Amino acid sequence: MPIDRDRLWARLETLSRITEPDMPWTRRSFTPRFLEGRAWLAEEFRAVGLETTLDAGGNLIGRLPGTEQGLRPILIGSHSDTVPSGGRYDGMLGVLAALEVAQSLIESGRRLRHPLEVIDFLAEEPSEFQGLSCIGSRAMSGALTDEHMELRRADGTSLRDAITYVGGRPDQIASETRAAGSVAAYVEVHIEQGRMLEAEAIPLGIVTDIVGIRRERITVKGRADHAGATPMPLRSDALVGAAKLIERAYEKALATSRDVQPLVATFGKIEIWPNAANAVPGSVVMTLEVRCGSEAAVAAFGEQLLRELAPALADVRVTATAERVSHVAPVACAASIRSAIADAAASCRLAARDLPSGAGHDGVFVSRLGPVGMIFVPCLDGRSHAPEESIEPGQAEDGARALAGTVDLLDERLD
Amino acid sequence: MPIDRDRLWARLETLSRITEPDMPWTRRSFTPRFLEGRAWLAEEFRAVGLETTLDAGGNLIGRLPGTEQGLRPILIGSHSDTVPSGGRYDGMLGVLAALEVAQSLIESGRRLRHPLEVIDFLAEEPSEFQGLSCIGSRAMSGALTDEHMELRRADGTSLRDAITYVGGRPDQIASETRAAGSVAAYVEVHIEQGRMLEAEAIPLGIVTDIVGIRRERITVKGRADHAGATPMPLRSDALVGAAKLIERAYEKALATSRDVQPLVATFGKIEIWPNAANAVPGSVVMTLEVRCGSEAAVAAFGEQLLRELAPALADVRVTATAERVSHVAPVACAASIRSAIADAAASCRLAARDLPSGAGHDGVFVSRLGPVGMIFVPCLDGRSHAPEESIEPGQAEDGARALAGTVDLLDERLD
Repeated sequence: MPIDRDRLWARLETLSRITEPDMPWTRRSFTPRFLEGRAWLAEEFRAVGLETTLDAGGNLIGRLPGTEQGLRPILIGSHSDTVPSGGRYDGMLGVLAALEVAQSLIESGRRLRHPLEVIDFLAEEPSEFQGLSCIGSRAMSGALTDEHMELRRADGTSLRDAITYVGGRPDQIASETRAAGSVAAYVEVHIEQGRMLEAEAIPLGIVTDIVGIRRERITVKGRADHAGATPMPLRSDALVGAAKLIERAYEKALATSRDVQPLVATFGKIEIWPNAANAVPGSVVMTLEVRCGSEAAVAAFGEQLLRELAPALADVRVTATAERVSHVAPVACAASIRSAIADAAASCRLAARDLPSGAGHDGVFVSRLGPVGMIFVPCLDGRSHAPEESIEPGQAEDGARALAGTVDLLDERLD
Repeated sequence: MPIDRDRLWARLETLSRITEPDMPWTRRSFTPRFLEGRAWLAEEFRAVGLETTLDAGGNLIGRLPGTEQGLRPILIGSHSDTVPSGGRYDGMLGVLAALEVAQSLIESGRRLRHPLEVIDFLAEEPSEFQGLSCIGSRAMSGALTDEHMELRRADGTSLRDAITYVGGRPDQIASETRAAGSVAAYVEVHIEQGRMLEAEAIPLGIVTDIVGIRRERITVKGRADHAGATPMPLRSDALVGAAKLIERAYEKALATSRDVQPLVATFGKIEIWPNAANAVPGSVVMTLEVRCGSEAAVAAFGEQLLRELAPALADVRVTATAERVSHVAPVACAASIRSAIADAAASCRLAARDLPSGAGHDGVFVSRLGPVGMIFVPCLDGRSHAPEESIEPGQAEDGARALAGTVDLLDERLD
């Protein structure tokens, strides 16, 4: 399957220009701008000859029938929504590379044995509905609950109504849920969002697993006091306790760097009270986020951290407690798909290396339906979720070529 | 001079009840509620027989002439404004104890040699004008600049107009500025706002100095990255750098605890960017506040901290810089006033100990005009600037008795 680099790149340019003009590059799910992008995409899907539909969960699907009866579909795609002030490639590249593969296949006159579905999943990025992400892939895999449907954004709209707004059919989501085992394979091309490939000048990454992500709210309690009138030995400074936790979490995670499944730990969000220059901080609330391919490691980190630090916190007269906010188990990419990607890369003469995906993706939910795999391409300086997100046309092409080869191999190898 | 404990306590109760009803105990400077408190105070001043005026800087002054011509006045008082959701004693106690002393003197039929001025200084607490404090004492001592006068609060009102609003005369502040050496003594009774007196069950504190206060804005710069896609060794986490600074500042200040002039250091305010659970913090801005009786120690602390930590910050690939926000030099209380307070305490059979004032007070500015001293009384659990601020009637009485005795001794001893 030959990949038309210029066509792929032109589509990336066209879709990216459908943005909130004052805030590039923004196409938030459930907005008029998102529908504008979707309308363009649907037209492209149809124009290349895909049977184009919107499923009950609001996923845009372009289908190409296979030659053999009874085979399950191969799914390829990603998402077309962005974070606010996001980039031009996260999500879009996966959708448009999949479209390019389908078009190349159609134009070549060849047919796959398996049905092929090009999918633009709905709202992969954290949405306005309390940050819920992967809404379309959740819906497809039966992971979108009634509780989720009642989440409301600031203007009072429920997620249920928002799904209707984009053309989904909330009442049919349950009956359209796909069964476990109903998908032959799901493969997604995505930018790395990190610097490992770029640092090693390797054009392709073969994702080994999509890490588990656990968030815990860590509350450090001390005592707010007048900063002038409270001598150091009488203080219970919650921020000093928080500092000890931040440092230790960093050291603990750093120590796993060379492990087979390294762990990353981040205190990305912090609020202190009363937050005044002349007040000893009385309490600190922080979010600890832990990501790792090992679920046991993800689950244990926060508790271990607090247990290890308890004596040091007691020394400064503060206490810390943890409360689980969310926990998503890691998902291993299928060996069958990983080896197909590796073989496809080799036949394209493109170097590839294994690496974990530190970010969550729709594959986490699609893995309930069948084996999943991901192909990463480098992005400039690892920048993502920012206007500076950048790739070269050749890198987009590499991803699409690897995807085409992988689809071919999977079509041969899977029954 | 006999002190009427019940009268003093009743006045504290009356004034404290002049509060924003939904936010006790609040009487913010430059508000209708503040003027209500001032109107009541002025009426009380007049009723006991004080010549009551408002000076150009908006200070309420009740004057009692002395018997000898040409003697400079003895000033006693404090302030009647509060912080938001403040207490019922900070400031008020000093004004009402001073009023009680003046009334007792008048009722006894005795006259002092020196003129006595009971003063309610304007806006001692951080005001809505970019936090400027000690506005009345600054005006009286020539420390209120034209720049200060143009500070604006959120509604656009200038400090100049706000001073007019409370009855001051901004255009006359310069001509009414008192000269250096024009005040015989200034003595203020105040709650300790700390726990040293309570911990040792000592009823009176003799303030040795009002500490210098320096604030620096510390900016830690790293690099914001995707928390999932950035391995620990590639991170430049500004919050990890900030944590190192917070811990070291605590340790350094703690090490001075037993010094003659201990230093306290506080990171009370912190903001991080982008402050998202899934983002490695790219920058942190914190306020470092340092207080100490030694100006050299106050001035050197932040710079030393950054210098000592530079290698540790480089290890985690972040940098830190400091920018001075404010610097108020420490003020030593006059030996003459400290010994008068000690003698007065002894003659009341009240135990007293020396201690520094960790908080700033109007005395910092009045010290430009003459010798100053302060008398502290304990407050429950050291709580201050909070609704829980609490003292007993006997503690208010102790402060007023010590003040009365001190005024008597100073009147004898000063020329």
